[in-house]
Amino acid sequence: MKNIFEVAVCQMLVTESKERNIDNAVEMLEIAAENGAQLALLPEMFICPYNSSLFSLYAENMESSKTLSAISNIAKKHNMYIAAGSIPEKYEDHLFNTCFVFDAKGNIIGRHRKTHLFDIDIPGKITFKESDSLSAGDNITVVDTEYCKIAVAICYDIRFPEFIRMAALKGAKLLVVPAAFNMTTGPAHWELLMRTRALDNQLYIAAASPARDETASYIAYGNSMIVDPWGMVLSRAGTGKEIIYMDIDLDEVEKIRMELPLLKHRRTDIYSFNL
Amino acid sequence: MKNIFEVAVCQMLVTESKERNIDNAVEMLEIAAENGAQLALLPEMFICPYNSSLFSLYAENMESSKTLSAISNIAKKHNMYIAAGSIPEKYEDHLFNTCFVFDAKGNIIGRHRKTHLFDIDIPGKITFKESDSLSAGDNITVVDTEYCKIAVAICYDIRFPEFIRMAALKGAKLLVVPAAFNMTTGPAHWELLMRTRALDNQLYIAAASPARDETASYIAYGNSMIVDPWGMVLSRAGTGKEIIYMDIDLDEVEKIRMELPLLKHRRTDIYSFNL
Repeated sequence: MKNIFEVAVCQMLVTESKERNIDNAVEMLEIAAENGAQLALLPEMFICPYNSSLFSLYAENMESSKTLSAISNIAKKHNMYIAAGSIPEKYEDHLFNTCFVFDAKGNIIGRHRKTHLFDIDIPGKITFKESDSLSAGDNITVVDTEYCKIAVAICYDIRFPEFIRMAALKGAKLLVVPAAFNMTTGPAHWELLMRTRALDNQLYIAAASPARDETASYIAYGNSMIVDPWGMVLSRAGTGKEIIYMDIDLDEVEKIRMELPLLKHRRTDIYSFNL
Repeated sequence: MKNIFEVAVCQMLVTESKERNIDNAVEMLEIAAENGAQLALLPEMFICPYNSSLFSLYAENMESSKTLSAISNIAKKHNMYIAAGSIPEKYEDHLFNTCFVFDAKGNIIGRHRKTHLFDIDIPGKITFKESDSLSAGDNITVVDTEYCKIAVAICYDIRFPEFIRMAALKGAKLLVVPAAFNMTTGPAHWELLMRTRALDNQLYIAAASPARDETASYIAYGNSMIVDPWGMVLSRAGTGKEIIYMDIDLDEVEKIRMELPLLKHRRTDIYSFNL
């Protein structure tokens, strides 16, 4: 196990053209690799507009996915892990919002299907109903890498402290979050949630948003960020197309877990969720 | 049930004199009541310095407590609920860090003993070991009032999302937090934790710190605050002696729980803490 590795978060501009989106993702991943990234992250639904009624048109099967094939090639070519944001995944009669994770040889080592579907209705601000078109996954996803265990949460998953706690208890020291917060929830909650989940669980978080496109039907917040286990923002993107980088120092995780032993101090004898 | 009620958070200066501290508390509670507060909150360990080796010297039994008697009188006199911060409570061979909650007739309706003891060791910054002198409580505390159910967390309890989640699931719409963050954890985490717990659990939080005393052995952060269920800070004290006030609007809790149904969207089928 190496104790420091470099993560790149690609805040890419997502368009209506799947081909262009794949090209854009590949281009950013190439740049990230050239800049020394050992793990790169893409945003949620990076091949299609974030629009519940369009997901089926862009969906792909894992076995025949053009997108995944392109990502796999980049991972292999550059010997770089890739957490490939998410795509609408077709599986039997279902559509999932799925993040595939590739190792540095281009193999798929993880598949996280968003477990909490984003059904929200704030009148006059933001209404979205993922469950109209998507099915929910049923698993906490933690993958082994040569650096550390890495967990995946997709966007709305981050709102559930139970879920992130389980990822930490399963050994994750980095949580990657492909996401697409909007102009209501983004300013209000994006930074707050990323920082507190990192702090509570004493792990790093890398969160990728699409770049903001004011002309899109769903306007992403941007502000992709990398947060440390003390809850501090180490690196933060603006709103445009941008790659941010940061060294993940696993010794820092151990140090903080020693100084402030939150995971050890949990009172599992009194928590009971059968309420 | 009334849907709006006024909460006062008393950021009092805690001295080495128990008598003076009781007088100070009584004085601030009187002012809060005169300003219309229907519930007033005091900070953690408001009758003694926050020092593990001194707790036993200031400790009181519930039955013969001079402090609780004074607080009860104020509650009754002003027809005001009081969450009486915390005191070192002597009980059999144990010492607890305990918050007593009084109804508007002066009766004790809740007793929360801090469940997570603050044992922290950040070299050169802050070292504290509550477990040297204190025993931990074993309960989530939620009391019924004429306004809503109110839960209590004492300081370090707030760091455990499981604990606060349970309070919300037990029906609390307001969480009161007598606390004493310090000059390391305060600037780093105080606001972050209060805002996220309120947001995640879609309830109000009122958090009381002692006023900052630069000459004390343990320097409290101050910054007492009241946070709404959307995670926004509604009112915030500075560092000195101060009372902050805010209307708690229970309709707002219902509105936010409808628009963004986080508590409903929990995936209890996949959370499992037997790890």
